[in-house]
Amino acid sequence: MTQMQDKVAPSAQSRVDDWLGRFEAALAARDIDAAAALFAVDSFWRDLVAFTWNLKTVEGRDGASGLLAACLDSIDPSGFRTSEPPTEADGVLEAWIEFETATGRGKGHLRLKAEGAWTLLTSLRELKDFPEPRAELRPKGARHGAVAGRLSWAEELELEQDRLGRRDQPFVVVIGGGQGGIALGARLRQLGVPALVVERNARAGDSWRNRYKSLCLHDPVWYDHLPYLPFPENWPVFAPKDKIADWLEMYTRVMEVPYWTSSEVTSAAYDEETGYWSVTVRRDGEEILLRPRHLVFATGMSGKPNLPSFPGMDEFAGEQHHSSRHPGPDAYRGKKAVVIGSNNSAHDICAALWEHDAEVTMVQRSSTHIVKSDSLMEFGLGDLYSERAVRSGMTTEKADMAFASLPYRIMPEFQIPIYQKIREHDAEFYERLAKAGFQHDWGDDGSGLFLKYLRRGSGYYIDVGAADLVANGEIRLAHGQVDHLTRDSVILGDGTELPADLVVYATGYGSMNGWVADLCGQAMADRVGKCWGLGSETTKDPGPWEGEQRNMWKPTQQPGLWFHGGNLHQSRHYSLYLALQLKARYEGIPTPVYGLQEVHHLS
Amino acid sequence: MTQMQDKVAPSAQSRVDDWLGRFEAALAARDIDAAAALFAVDSFWRDLVAFTWNLKTVEGRDGASGLLAACLDSIDPSGFRTSEPPTEADGVLEAWIEFETATGRGKGHLRLKAEGAWTLLTSLRELKDFPEPRAELRPKGARHGAVAGRLSWAEELELEQDRLGRRDQPFVVVIGGGQGGIALGARLRQLGVPALVVERNARAGDSWRNRYKSLCLHDPVWYDHLPYLPFPENWPVFAPKDKIADWLEMYTRVMEVPYWTSSEVTSAAYDEETGYWSVTVRRDGEEILLRPRHLVFATGMSGKPNLPSFPGMDEFAGEQHHSSRHPGPDAYRGKKAVVIGSNNSAHDICAALWEHDAEVTMVQRSSTHIVKSDSLMEFGLGDLYSERAVRSGMTTEKADMAFASLPYRIMPEFQIPIYQKIREHDAEFYERLAKAGFQHDWGDDGSGLFLKYLRRGSGYYIDVGAADLVANGEIRLAHGQVDHLTRDSVILGDGTELPADLVVYATGYGSMNGWVADLCGQAMADRVGKCWGLGSETTKDPGPWEGEQRNMWKPTQQPGLWFHGGNLHQSRHYSLYLALQLKARYEGIPTPVYGLQEVHHLS
Repeated sequence: MTQMQDKVAPSAQSRVDDWLGRFEAALAARDIDAAAALFAVDSFWRDLVAFTWNLKTVEGRDGASGLLAACLDSIDPSGFRTSEPPTEADGVLEAWIEFETATGRGKGHLRLKAEGAWTLLTSLRELKDFPEPRAELRPKGARHGAVAGRLSWAEELELEQDRLGRRDQPFVVVIGGGQGGIALGARLRQLGVPALVVERNARAGDSWRNRYKSLCLHDPVWYDHLPYLPFPENWPVFAPKDKIADWLEMYTRVMEVPYWTSSEVTSAAYDEETGYWSVTVRRDGEEILLRPRHLVFATGMSGKPNLPSFPGMDEFAGEQHHSSRHPGPDAYRGKKAVVIGSNNSAHDICAALWEHDAEVTMVQRSSTHIVKSDSLMEFGLGDLYSERAVRSGMTTEKADMAFASLPYRIMPEFQIPIYQKIREHDAEFYERLAKAGFQHDWGDDGSGLFLKYLRRGSGYYIDVGAADLVANGEIRLAHGQVDHLTRDSVILGDGTELPADLVVYATGYGSMNGWVADLCGQAMADRVGKCWGLGSETTKDPGPWEGEQRNMWKPTQQPGLWFHGGNLHQSRHYSLYLALQLKARYEGIPTPVYGLQEVHHLS
Repeated sequence: MTQMQDKVAPSAQSRVDDWLGRFEAALAARDIDAAAALFAVDSFWRDLVAFTWNLKTVEGRDGASGLLAACLDSIDPSGFRTSEPPTEADGVLEAWIEFETATGRGKGHLRLKAEGAWTLLTSLRELKDFPEPRAELRPKGARHGAVAGRLSWAEELELEQDRLGRRDQPFVVVIGGGQGGIALGARLRQLGVPALVVERNARAGDSWRNRYKSLCLHDPVWYDHLPYLPFPENWPVFAPKDKIADWLEMYTRVMEVPYWTSSEVTSAAYDEETGYWSVTVRRDGEEILLRPRHLVFATGMSGKPNLPSFPGMDEFAGEQHHSSRHPGPDAYRGKKAVVIGSNNSAHDICAALWEHDAEVTMVQRSSTHIVKSDSLMEFGLGDLYSERAVRSGMTTEKADMAFASLPYRIMPEFQIPIYQKIREHDAEFYERLAKAGFQHDWGDDGSGLFLKYLRRGSGYYIDVGAADLVANGEIRLAHGQVDHLTRDSVILGDGTELPADLVVYATGYGSMNGWVADLCGQAMADRVGKCWGLGSETTKDPGPWEGEQRNMWKPTQQPGLWFHGGNLHQSRHYSLYLALQLKARYEGIPTPVYGLQEVHHLS
């Protein structure tokens, strides 16, 4: 632009302020049409709780109208402003925004084109009457002054722990004490919502300790922080499972998460009239009845193993188990190992077996998307979650919001170029894989790993070394479906015989509502339907389009029943919204839900 | 200043750059006189390891000359520059600086007057060849690729722990696993120095768990962070002892500090010829011999109780113990408790007893300095260690350096006005105390709490409520020395009889070299001399002036023997310098010590 043009063209700040001003004015005047007209034809408004008391993405002007028609009065939003100077690139203005509602304070993000708003993200960050006690509001700790009959912190905590579940009922019970349950438990504690996290293993972190020994995180540290207490500067990029386990264990303690170990939920029933759950927990040989108002399943994306059923499994004389039960390679030196599956667990397990001198065959049943860990870090996450991002001032909160500001519908557009870059960058690697006969895909539409994860939670491998073993033939590759097992081998559909001392079924995991079926009955499992997936009409993610993850972190068709989980990033980020929704209910703040998701699939 | 003057007067940046340029040029030319002349007549150069391989404050031009004459060649400093724009107030320029030496990178601070440098702080931050593996250099974690016979992280750690002290000897043994030993252990781990922290209690953190139950930290959270892993935003301002204990326990684990619990060092002897220690440790009924090159006593400022010896103690029929053994108030409801002492522990214990309905008498033997916790936080620490400091961009590292940049010699000048402000602010409080007969002081020279702490480690109370109980007579006050005990009372020098069921000797702690005497013999204890204190010729801090804390965090008169400790701030900050000194020795980097402290007092 020439200097003279600079003098007449309004700045990015003024253009954003103009839009926000008109948006706010329309909202204040309850002029829904005017507000909707501020959106481009192709536009998306993603609301995380603030307007809809839901996690909801609406599309276009009609979507915005519908949302506003339902929510505007009760939400009464105001105070829209930027929180820092907007930026501009490729004809799109980007702005970080803040705003208020009747009961909350929100933050968000706006992408503005000449035509109007392209993407708007509004997210609730805190409830006005119940700000989190941190920073300036952090608790004092020592109760200064003289308090007759004072109990020490430790005594109070012990008393609270004794009474929980007996004299005092929690408002929320969280089933599952992995990173999801723990992150949510910490948020609820912070917000003063009486809660209890129930974990069946003996120690917090065991869900990681009990995994195969070579397991390390595949997501880098900056992506993985838990709420409030980030990993320190000297934490490794990819933490080994036991290190994560130890961290989770101490986090649970220092964050004062109310947490029962060696405790198993055996059943849960909901009383529609009273709005209470009856949750039975087996603990130390005792059966305890809990009566919360809300029940959160945080049983894990890798919680419910998918164990296939092949003819001859009962004849097979060797060892066989699902990948979730694989102990690691130590016992299989010199043995023939056949691993069914070609995604993450399969690769990890095959590589570890190879490192310990087993003879390893991987049976690939369908194509897998592989991306090298370094490439994913660099091209996929680097702008938001990396040391260089940190150095440039990126905070975890901002990175999470940037991630969230991209509507799922258009995310492929943004991801496809990234994977094209990766494909070029690692061309030689993919060529070697292809030469070895590995069936590789880039996602149905070339949009790569993260979308495969969002759509189906599987079908990929973040390569940390196993792919080279496949490419150079050290791990043998076989293709096809399993037909049956014999006493000592696996027979594929085309008759290929694979002698085996060990068969590992790296065959994935089922939808979390499988747990609902187990604990609450099939009827309730069907009422809430399948968890996860976007309805993208891609492999294993049938339509219709949902707009958000099915059932995750938001109201379901079963009052009082919620799901929490996902990877560490999602456990961290979405635990805030789920905790706020539960806190609002605890405090009796009205939470009219807009656009409660419908159930299109049962599992 | 008028605008015309602005045009001719050089900016703060250029004046600092000018001084730094001339300083660097003089150093490069080895022109010691020229360098010394850049200092004001009344000036101080405090070096933390970078130049002197010591913690050393020198004074005036002669001090600077002496230091440079000894160190300049081997240190070969260069690259002096500001790291941010200097500021100016009251005729003094202040600048944060960076520089390099032959083997290290340093940071520092400069106060410049028209006459020359007033204060210069130079501190070593890292060894060039051994940068800490953090941030961009953080360990990868997962070893990517395929590694035959790979051990998992947990397996490697277990192997290391099995071998430590048996097959593999640590380079450094740290006696004492409280916050000092733990912070140092974490730094040494980070720097790759094989070390072992030996703790006699059963769990890390027990040194706090075992204290009287009402104990909370009296220093606020921002002051207390451990290295690498700060307390989170929602940590209380004043953490209860058990919360700190839990944090220390998990910190030890997640920071992978090599740490033995239930292990007691029984003796330590040094072989002058070989330069090795023989340290015997009793662990699980076994006697283990450790052979480190360096031995660090981190046994605590509150490690060696000072138990007085009064006639009649053996006759007294009630309970009596030192404050360090006080279990808390629970057993003393309705009992008569007499607490000897009027400083921190005495106040805490008296208040807790009062809260549990004991009849409490405090025997004040000498004056005490009291400051209200809120006032200390606000006026004493607020600019550096507070939420508002954090919001204004103050980091812990910077706050520590700002604190360190003030030479001990002139610290009183800076502290006296603060306490004058506090005296005014809390005038009513001090009046009530005086009316109750409490003997209050402001330090010998009115310089208040922190200097009392630095000079003698005691003689004060950070008031969190007990002082009001004294002021209003709920805690009875008696004055004088203890003459003797009878079967059921304490008799003071003036004949006052204080009936007692319980006597608590809140009579303080002894110098850490008492531990050296116990474990290594009196001769070695005398060789190193008294720990702590500045030689200020104030109460309990006899001269001559030392310039730095006696024996702390720096070379002592006993080769291979070191002391670490202090409050959480000092444990954090000074652990860096001690760790660097040990790392340099581990790597064989020359460490010529300038101005090794002489011993002026034995205890």
